[in-house]
Amino acid sequence: MTTQSATTSSPLPGTSRKAYGASSADAQLAPLTIPRRAPLAQDVVIDILFCGVCHSDLHQARNEWHNTVYPCVPGHEIVGRVTQVGSAVTRFEVGDFAAVGCLVDSCRSCPSCRKGLEQFCEQHPTFTYNSEDRHLGAVTYGGYSEQIVVDEAFTLKVPAGLDLAATAPLLCAGITTYSPLRHWNVGPGQKVGIVGLGGLGHMGVKFAKALGAHVVVFTTSPGKIQDALRLGAHEVVVSTNQEEMKNHATSFNFILDTVSAQHDLGAFLQLLKVDGTLTIVGAPEHPLPLPIFNLLIPRRNIAGSLIGGIQETQEMLDFCAAHNIVCDIELIPMSGINQAYERLLKNDVKYRFVIDMASLQAEVG
Amino acid sequence: MTTQSATTSSPLPGTSRKAYGASSADAQLAPLTIPRRAPLAQDVVIDILFCGVCHSDLHQARNEWHNTVYPCVPGHEIVGRVTQVGSAVTRFEVGDFAAVGCLVDSCRSCPSCRKGLEQFCEQHPTFTYNSEDRHLGAVTYGGYSEQIVVDEAFTLKVPAGLDLAATAPLLCAGITTYSPLRHWNVGPGQKVGIVGLGGLGHMGVKFAKALGAHVVVFTTSPGKIQDALRLGAHEVVVSTNQEEMKNHATSFNFILDTVSAQHDLGAFLQLLKVDGTLTIVGAPEHPLPLPIFNLLIPRRNIAGSLIGGIQETQEMLDFCAAHNIVCDIELIPMSGINQAYERLLKNDVKYRFVIDMASLQAEVG
Repeated sequence: MTTQSATTSSPLPGTSRKAYGASSADAQLAPLTIPRRAPLAQDVVIDILFCGVCHSDLHQARNEWHNTVYPCVPGHEIVGRVTQVGSAVTRFEVGDFAAVGCLVDSCRSCPSCRKGLEQFCEQHPTFTYNSEDRHLGAVTYGGYSEQIVVDEAFTLKVPAGLDLAATAPLLCAGITTYSPLRHWNVGPGQKVGIVGLGGLGHMGVKFAKALGAHVVVFTTSPGKIQDALRLGAHEVVVSTNQEEMKNHATSFNFILDTVSAQHDLGAFLQLLKVDGTLTIVGAPEHPLPLPIFNLLIPRRNIAGSLIGGIQETQEMLDFCAAHNIVCDIELIPMSGINQAYERLLKNDVKYRFVIDMASLQAEVG
Repeated sequence: MTTQSATTSSPLPGTSRKAYGASSADAQLAPLTIPRRAPLAQDVVIDILFCGVCHSDLHQARNEWHNTVYPCVPGHEIVGRVTQVGSAVTRFEVGDFAAVGCLVDSCRSCPSCRKGLEQFCEQHPTFTYNSEDRHLGAVTYGGYSEQIVVDEAFTLKVPAGLDLAATAPLLCAGITTYSPLRHWNVGPGQKVGIVGLGGLGHMGVKFAKALGAHVVVFTTSPGKIQDALRLGAHEVVVSTNQEEMKNHATSFNFILDTVSAQHDLGAFLQLLKVDGTLTIVGAPEHPLPLPIFNLLIPRRNIAGSLIGGIQETQEMLDFCAAHNIVCDIELIPMSGINQAYERLLKNDVKYRFVIDMASLQAEVG
């Protein structure tokens, strides 16, 4: 429980960097040091300015997916400034703003990688944290740290004009909602539902609106109605109101379901037109009961979607710059992460915590 | 329990016809008489030669869907000979072979009807039995009868060369499997799974093979392996063998799931490639548990499909004629229906019972 540094006993081919992480499933996150590799020819060294806080960070830190390697340094919504580039790097220069999302590498040659779906790499993608590190061994360490070293092929450009802190969560919450809306061709003339108004849902609303759809938010919280409208929703339905739900029966082209808790898929399937699709981006721990008749009459689809590939993530960032879209965030210091996790568990955040990484320097000294 | 005739007390605008039906949920099927309307201008009068036995017939007769109106005359896999045509009929002549499936009418003007998806008519299609009869009131009566009167717009042409008895089940088991294989563009170069080898599954194998796919049958019964290969499967997997299942992980473009019993969707979802689809055409009574991670990693789809529209049903019949496809059937007399239902419950039929309607004349006299 008192471990405060990671694998610093063996000589590192890179440097030690300050970070914040969990040393066990029941430990609070605390300062520690982690190794970062010396930049290879194609690497970009990024001093991290901001890192978003995703619910996955909490799941991983607390070993809720039963695969965490400790110490665990979460964080995959990273925005920073380039401070060094390898000799072969062509797309970045020192001083550029750069971003890193959930992926830092993949095989680059399997059918999924060749289609730009690196998140489904058949040789397993390298995730930004708690993934096998192809360079240093052990696991990858995420963005709750002062610096990260990433191959430029997995480094995103931050378009000019975006607020940097509010851009950070685009790297996960943004692409997770943008990718399915694009894949299922959401656009003008379509009626689109967004189920749940949290970190993912609020981005779904902004993107669906910007893509030209008629956007209906479904929430169980009447208190969120005004905020949903402010974010761009055309209509808001309190999903526990069966009469309201009935009024929308068989009328949606597409519904994006961002809810991770157990919930009734049938209630939302019934809202889809013939050949409509309900796409799930939340990750409920237990299977959800699927009422088959609602899939058959009329013919409807359920699908899942997971983040997005690198090219699509860049497209999403550029789309955000063009449409002036960022996340609604609450900026916290690194030392506030444990309290933020507690609030996350109560859905008490509008709509994403972002860590101001300058605070890590101050704390760890 | 002893009711043997239906609504014969009021004057009928048509004629009384011999049929076989259930007078209550727990009654055996028995002879009765039913009204058929005198043909209207656009009607075709068909003397029924053969009628297939669908599991839905049993569900409806026994009120397992809690909506049966008694007496109930099932049967929606109908082949017969045209004996009379209305004055406005253009596509049929007396003496033609004709077929009727699950639908005998719809609104014809809603978006679904205009797209040829009459089965999803937004004003509710008129099903061949146990549906509100738009002409006589009360409910429609199905193909377990000597004659049926149907609008020519819902009457199919039976292409020359097809065995008439073995054609009957194409009207439900055939179109139910053909429609999703076509809708999801199954064809050459694709690996396609058929889950379950019953009335639906055996037709799925024949169609998927004829469409040029590499066909893999999944069955829980090792005893069905030889028959699956005979029907055209390239491979057969006993789905309880986890090692065999593992060998097919992430390799299928499309899987048609014909199983109505509770079963593990996750086991089959895992077999799909990125963007692959598992389409369900069985109708399990209870919701099936849907493991969401298997939908997310990689991105996959689940869908439902219900029979097919009229134009697609005709296309299916023509496809069958071109590819010499019919159902594998067991011909039974009308009086054998109760025994056939008992065997149906034990899946003891290869692969569809078809009633020889000439036997009804002999029995009822």
